[in-house]
Amino acid sequence: LYALAKRVLDELQTAGLTLTTAESCTGGLISSALTEHAGSSAVYLGGVIAYSNHVKTALLGLDDALIRDFGAVDARVARVMAEGAARAIGADIAVAVTGIAGPSGGTPQKPVGLVYVAVVSSTGCEVEELRLEGDRRRIREQSAERALEMVLECVARDARDRL
Amino acid sequence: LYALAKRVLDELQTAGLTLTTAESCTGGLISSALTEHAGSSAVYLGGVIAYSNHVKTALLGLDDALIRDFGAVDARVARVMAEGAARAIGADIAVAVTGIAGPSGGTPQKPVGLVYVAVVSSTGCEVEELRLEGDRRRIREQSAERALEMVLECVARDARDRL
Repeated sequence: LYALAKRVLDELQTAGLTLTTAESCTGGLISSALTEHAGSSAVYLGGVIAYSNHVKTALLGLDDALIRDFGAVDARVARVMAEGAARAIGADIAVAVTGIAGPSGGTPQKPVGLVYVAVVSSTGCEVEELRLEGDRRRIREQSAERALEMVLECVARDARDRL
Repeated sequence: LYALAKRVLDELQTAGLTLTTAESCTGGLISSALTEHAGSSAVYLGGVIAYSNHVKTALLGLDDALIRDFGAVDARVARVMAEGAARAIGADIAVAVTGIAGPSGGTPQKPVGLVYVAVVSSTGCEVEELRLEGDRRRIREQSAERALEMVLECVARDARDRL
């Protein structure tokens, strides 16, 4: 995660893009991996740990009704979290993660390990549904890794679009 | 840090208090240690990674002039970050950390290792100035540890005041 975060910072710097994060189930794992590296402040502006639904609505501008209708672990919620973070923090790229890290909190429809990752930028939005296995720590780590990989893919897409 | 975070969660739960975080130099280290534990969402509501000054002003309501006049690494800034997080997120206790983790960014007046930690609650505000040694990782870890210890002290103070 640490090495992947370094690659994300380097690619953002080369592309001249800034990043923000909106983390629910990863709870700061992505931001702490990024800020472990000296000089990260040049491209990583900060983010929101949207652990409670109140933070999602108060700081990221999510509609209460969206969470009421679909639950906090939902592809639409992930997308709106990313869009809200990009807007609130004024970054070029925003990545959001919401999921069920367990061990409790799972249901038959939304089991432990179900995670949504959304990345938004000027070129659009990608949302991915993950079905992860392992314990709480492993689910959080895999979620953070996939989120950072999706940021790399987004930077590459943005670069292609600019050609 | 992991074990200390667990103790903080247990003490908050016993006291019936909620917590939020506003992290600059620790960049998510406190929030990721708290959310590593299952059930943390009962007392930890989330927080803000206030890495750039824009996040400090946009999400935590800091006055631009405060940062312009005193710099982002300042006892007053730490206090206003904590107050802003408590207000924005609606938690009983807020802890804020701002400092210079290095290796660059230090000055003779504000050297690498200078960190301010502020904790606010209904019983008031405590701000501590730390002068830490070691590399970037060690400075961030010690800052996060002291921040969590100050939350424990705050919970104990609150409990005494209620007697």
